[in-house]
Amino acid sequence: MGRMSLPRVVIVGAGFGGLEAARALANAPVEVIVVDQQNHHCFQPLLYEVATAALSPAEIAWPIRALLRRQKNALVMLARVDAIDTAGRIVNTDSVTLPYDFLVLATGATHSYFGHDAWEPFAPGLKRIEDATKIRARILMAFERAELTEDAAMRSRLLTFVVIGGGPTGVEMAGAIAEVARETLRSDFRRIDPRQSRIILLEAAGRLLASFPESLARYAERTLRAMGVEVMTSNLVTACDGQGVTTDSQRIEASTLIWAAGVISSPAADWLGVAHDRVGRILVNPDLTVDGLKDVFAIGDLAALTERGRPVPGVAPAAKQMGRYVGRRIAAVVRGDTSGAPFVYRHFGELATIGRRSAIVNLPYLRLTGPIGWLFWSVAHIYFLIGARNRAIVAFSWLWSYLTFQRGARLISS
Amino acid sequence: MGRMSLPRVVIVGAGFGGLEAARALANAPVEVIVVDQQNHHCFQPLLYEVATAALSPAEIAWPIRALLRRQKNALVMLARVDAIDTAGRIVNTDSVTLPYDFLVLATGATHSYFGHDAWEPFAPGLKRIEDATKIRARILMAFERAELTEDAAMRSRLLTFVVIGGGPTGVEMAGAIAEVARETLRSDFRRIDPRQSRIILLEAAGRLLASFPESLARYAERTLRAMGVEVMTSNLVTACDGQGVTTDSQRIEASTLIWAAGVISSPAADWLGVAHDRVGRILVNPDLTVDGLKDVFAIGDLAALTERGRPVPGVAPAAKQMGRYVGRRIAAVVRGDTSGAPFVYRHFGELATIGRRSAIVNLPYLRLTGPIGWLFWSVAHIYFLIGARNRAIVAFSWLWSYLTFQRGARLISS
Repeated sequence: MGRMSLPRVVIVGAGFGGLEAARALANAPVEVIVVDQQNHHCFQPLLYEVATAALSPAEIAWPIRALLRRQKNALVMLARVDAIDTAGRIVNTDSVTLPYDFLVLATGATHSYFGHDAWEPFAPGLKRIEDATKIRARILMAFERAELTEDAAMRSRLLTFVVIGGGPTGVEMAGAIAEVARETLRSDFRRIDPRQSRIILLEAAGRLLASFPESLARYAERTLRAMGVEVMTSNLVTACDGQGVTTDSQRIEASTLIWAAGVISSPAADWLGVAHDRVGRILVNPDLTVDGLKDVFAIGDLAALTERGRPVPGVAPAAKQMGRYVGRRIAAVVRGDTSGAPFVYRHFGELATIGRRSAIVNLPYLRLTGPIGWLFWSVAHIYFLIGARNRAIVAFSWLWSYLTFQRGARLISS
Repeated sequence: MGRMSLPRVVIVGAGFGGLEAARALANAPVEVIVVDQQNHHCFQPLLYEVATAALSPAEIAWPIRALLRRQKNALVMLARVDAIDTAGRIVNTDSVTLPYDFLVLATGATHSYFGHDAWEPFAPGLKRIEDATKIRARILMAFERAELTEDAAMRSRLLTFVVIGGGPTGVEMAGAIAEVARETLRSDFRRIDPRQSRIILLEAAGRLLASFPESLARYAERTLRAMGVEVMTSNLVTACDGQGVTTDSQRIEASTLIWAAGVISSPAADWLGVAHDRVGRILVNPDLTVDGLKDVFAIGDLAALTERGRPVPGVAPAAKQMGRYVGRRIAAVVRGDTSGAPFVYRHFGELATIGRRSAIVNLPYLRLTGPIGWLFWSVAHIYFLIGARNRAIVAFSWLWSYLTFQRGARLISS
């Protein structure tokens, strides 16, 4: 693609990190090109709400170009990156060829099946809008099929839902499915009772939520059990198939499996031909450049960075902080200032909901649980949702489901 | 499927007609089974708002079983009807076999390409949620591709949108696409100006909106032209392909074609082995029974009925009135009262919007145009949307887009 006279920054990926990098360059004398395979930025922390029919896709996803509409130096391209030529400083996509002066890789992560990719069709993971609508259709279809079948074993398999992985996503999914079965669908069927459904949360380790303090994890487990979720820790999955899941200690017949057990970074390390860690992340320098490539940055879930002896976690706030740092860094370099300090991660804490009435909040100086935790979680998430319109609609949807136990997006469609 | 001791009414299709029939049987001593291929009832009059990214699918579609939750004598089945045995009084589906005492066929209509089904992939029609999300993705992708291409002819083809058929759906689609191009996307691109897009409305007849009075049709045409829509009447389409459309008088290069020119009824007449008219509709008696089958009713877009010399139109109010009539009729017959009067259609009028600021309203004693017409149209549609939650969200979405020129559901996803 033709060049302007300004230095060009190509940003690959418009997740939390890439978008923040673009914004931090708004007033810099550069041309910014944001490339993404999708036309929308997805607010991933709420994907489980789409997967469980509480929110519509458009309530947590916004056109990237609408988000950058006012930033006149930013150009958005819907394209898929195929290769990067670091010697010639060129990004090759399926439609255009983009020379760059600075490259920011923010391609994120996808689910990892630890070498068992054959499990994916049976146990889809939750990273994109399409994943969420697929899982939503599977959950709702399981109840529909259970209502129709005359076969008791099949009915029982259809009414068993297994979430694999006891991190925040797994905890949130299991809690939400329990609410769908026990509250939302309670009166909708005539031949089955959705309240008889089994919702099972499998975790390989000895307890849930490894990154949270033990007391909060125990609270989450008690709350889930009270909601009717069967929490099974120390169960390592050894096989997933169309009829259920096998662990190192048992076999569970279930027609709906959901994968929340692991992630792996996008193949950006292969594009560059550089070293990556066990989960595909690129090892970056303290200024987030890729080793040996001082004009190429890797951020967010794609970057492996250890700071003061602790790894920076793969969470949205870390990606945003990295994006902002890199945007400012490039702006400084363009102005001739190469003296910048290394990236410093500020940890604000972490949150997870457990159904609609409870959450756990772990901040440096504050721990919350129960309804107060949920309120904190709701306000924090609505605040971070981009766009006033969506903030209002999401707040309204949540208030509505809270008051009525309904879920507004129970659509089975492709 | 096993029988209860009550007479069983099987209703095929949960559109406006089928749903109304089920509701009219709420207090009758019958078992009601509603069968549909989809899990949701779709408010078709607003599908064009989904196709043009103003509303989300879930804002105009609701789970059928949620709509019938409180009706304890109604059972909802997600299944596809394959055949009907009228002698044995059995409906065969892809999963269950349903004996019936009364059968109500309310399967609606789909687009008709007048014998040219090969045109469908190039010019999709708008009848289901999936159609609307497909058309939405095509419209948005055309702008994305135009932004990327270096080829001027291709760019011009990508920025040309042709709506085929000048009835209410065609008029509404053309007006909405014009607004997307001229207002919503105005500042979103850097290399193209979406305001340069051509939006063309093709109609084979000499004027738009054949069912409306000439004065209102002329008003609609003037308003569309003022919005930048090229209205081309007396243009009969003779071919659709991947590069554009050919009419009896010209060739138009366009990458996005939308079909709004004709409908054909579902194949229910074939299931019964009875006569149907040119567009597949079943000829019904004045009590909406199928001739020769006194326990089988056909309603809505599936029924061909002439009343006082005028055909009952294929519109939502007619389907609802027929559904209510049939439900009450069956309830009366079950009570032993077979003396009922024939169906009488009450025509309330018709409406069509032209963009977001104007509409035409044709009521028996009232004609409205312009912003007053639009206000009337909005209130009428919000009133008829089922479910208070959706009413509030749709009202909010509309108010928001009216104030900001934005569209909230600009998602390209499968």
